[in-house]
Amino acid sequence: MARSPGSTGPTLAVIAREAGVSVPTASKVVNGREDVAPDTRRRVSEVLDRLGYVRKPRPETPRPPALVDLVVQSLDGAWSGAVLHGVEAAAHDAGLEVVVSAGLPRLRDGRPERGWLDKLCARGSSGVLFHLAELTPTQYAWLDEHRVPFVLIDPGPVPPPGVPSVGAADWQGGVSATEHLLGLGHRRIAVIGGYRRKVCSGARVAGFRSAMAAAGLPVPPAYVRYGDFREAGAYQRMTELLELPEPPTAVFVCSDPMALGAYRALRERGLRVPEDVSVVGFDDLPQARWTTPALTTVRQPLSEMAATALRTLLRLRAGEVPEGMRTELSTRLIVRSSTAPPVRISS
Amino acid sequence: MARSPGSTGPTLAVIAREAGVSVPTASKVVNGREDVAPDTRRRVSEVLDRLGYVRKPRPETPRPPALVDLVVQSLDGAWSGAVLHGVEAAAHDAGLEVVVSAGLPRLRDGRPERGWLDKLCARGSSGVLFHLAELTPTQYAWLDEHRVPFVLIDPGPVPPPGVPSVGAADWQGGVSATEHLLGLGHRRIAVIGGYRRKVCSGARVAGFRSAMAAAGLPVPPAYVRYGDFREAGAYQRMTELLELPEPPTAVFVCSDPMALGAYRALRERGLRVPEDVSVVGFDDLPQARWTTPALTTVRQPLSEMAATALRTLLRLRAGEVPEGMRTELSTRLIVRSSTAPPVRISS
Repeated sequence: MARSPGSTGPTLAVIAREAGVSVPTASKVVNGREDVAPDTRRRVSEVLDRLGYVRKPRPETPRPPALVDLVVQSLDGAWSGAVLHGVEAAAHDAGLEVVVSAGLPRLRDGRPERGWLDKLCARGSSGVLFHLAELTPTQYAWLDEHRVPFVLIDPGPVPPPGVPSVGAADWQGGVSATEHLLGLGHRRIAVIGGYRRKVCSGARVAGFRSAMAAAGLPVPPAYVRYGDFREAGAYQRMTELLELPEPPTAVFVCSDPMALGAYRALRERGLRVPEDVSVVGFDDLPQARWTTPALTTVRQPLSEMAATALRTLLRLRAGEVPEGMRTELSTRLIVRSSTAPPVRISS
Repeated sequence: MARSPGSTGPTLAVIAREAGVSVPTASKVVNGREDVAPDTRRRVSEVLDRLGYVRKPRPETPRPPALVDLVVQSLDGAWSGAVLHGVEAAAHDAGLEVVVSAGLPRLRDGRPERGWLDKLCARGSSGVLFHLAELTPTQYAWLDEHRVPFVLIDPGPVPPPGVPSVGAADWQGGVSATEHLLGLGHRRIAVIGGYRRKVCSGARVAGFRSAMAAAGLPVPPAYVRYGDFREAGAYQRMTELLELPEPPTAVFVCSDPMALGAYRALRERGLRVPEDVSVVGFDDLPQARWTTPALTTVRQPLSEMAATALRTLLRLRAGEVPEGMRTELSTRLIVRSSTAPPVRISS
């Protein structure tokens, strides 16, 4: 007997007999063909429902790929390239295309404007990935209300409960960087964090403190300073550290651009990296290879984080609840040439 | 008398009288309202046409912003950040959103696949910007046939006639770089180009040759070498230059990443930049600031080129014919610390 592949329950012959139509006519109704009289369609449909016939999925009509939105703080920043790379690759694998929006003017102070969200809804979006963004409670409420799935990549402050985010294992990275310097024999180690209220900055500095505590070493308050993740701020902080009565012999800076600022402050005082002061960065941006000496740094897998965020978004879209709201991908120390044992001062 | 703002010619009262309807009914037809009998609408419309009534534009219904496509060779490359930044900013100004696609697997060997172009048409796109792409004659034909406007940013080989492109004033940049080295007193100057068949590479090397010729200096064939715009290739070429019986005292490398390779080759041989050999790059990428010494380089305005390409696309879309098919934005030498007068050898 003719039985549609993928269907369960009664055969087409049974349906046709019950509805008082021919098998080809029953088949037309089952397959959603247009050339059936409305009354005939209704009768066949009633039989299908009564007998519990499960329709096989309609063959996919060619449709344009769905869109997913990526909102980054800025497109000329040091981090956006790797994030965009990861999102685009994962989106392509999922048959999606990526609409990219840069920070200002859509993001005022890193917060998306209401108008942008309205437009997003009008266009139709599979969801939004926010990189380094900081959303207001109103915007969180709006996204929920309009059932727009979203995931944060490297969020600024800790997001509200129930908001999924993807970041790096920042604390572990801070521990690795510090343990590397301790292993080389450094004891006077300082840290320059990024923005104080950023989750990732806090976690990296906490990792530093944990490693120092585990080694039984005190951390003078003057050895813990905060910049803004950028070169200029770190240049200032490094200069302050070098003006201390007892300056550090090594410094862990919480981003690669900040390492650049530290290098410059050291160079201007005639100090060499790593002979006089060791420097460890955080990020492992492609640019880290451009420095002289090449930067020892903690690699955070930005592209993989971005791809993970995209896949989390798709699971949310499909109605799944992610296992955890915060996913952390592991970090890894990359030893290059900016770290060395401290100069021994004869005592 | 009631006269719609923005309209010219007869008033609504005149139209209503001529069509034998009330003023409110005439107004409904003028404003495209649905609640008018077809026959009434036809009569009013005839009067409108006869009297030369110019309808004011219908109030804008909120529509999602149109999409424009940017296809880049790769998203983790050194150049894509600045290009994307420029396109996004200009698109935002024009009320457009940007769909970004990275090279592979959509671009096989830098050539867009047919399937991608079909999807683009299905989704609806205001047009396509290709960065560093190389299209086949079939793809050019397809784009024309489907009336998809497109503009090339920094095309690979010379595009066919009638294909609009935006680039930098590469030849002039090559002249500036070389004149700078000549001005410092260098006579033994070499050049390392990028891919030989790329328009921009050829023009930069031609600029070098022109400046040398203008100074009456011969260019030994061994002093003109080609890499691939990347670090590793330039490292090889620089090593070869240093192995010559009479190595150059200065080198013009046709991209910033290539300068990095030249630096490495020099450093490995114990040669200092700029004391022993001067280096001039091309691009002025943000990364150029990460090198030690900071790179003297020719700035090409990538973001501005990208924004210009977007605006050219919109003019094509509007049916305008661009003034020229090739737009070149000016380049400018940025003198930093990688160039100095040559060491005088006592003769």
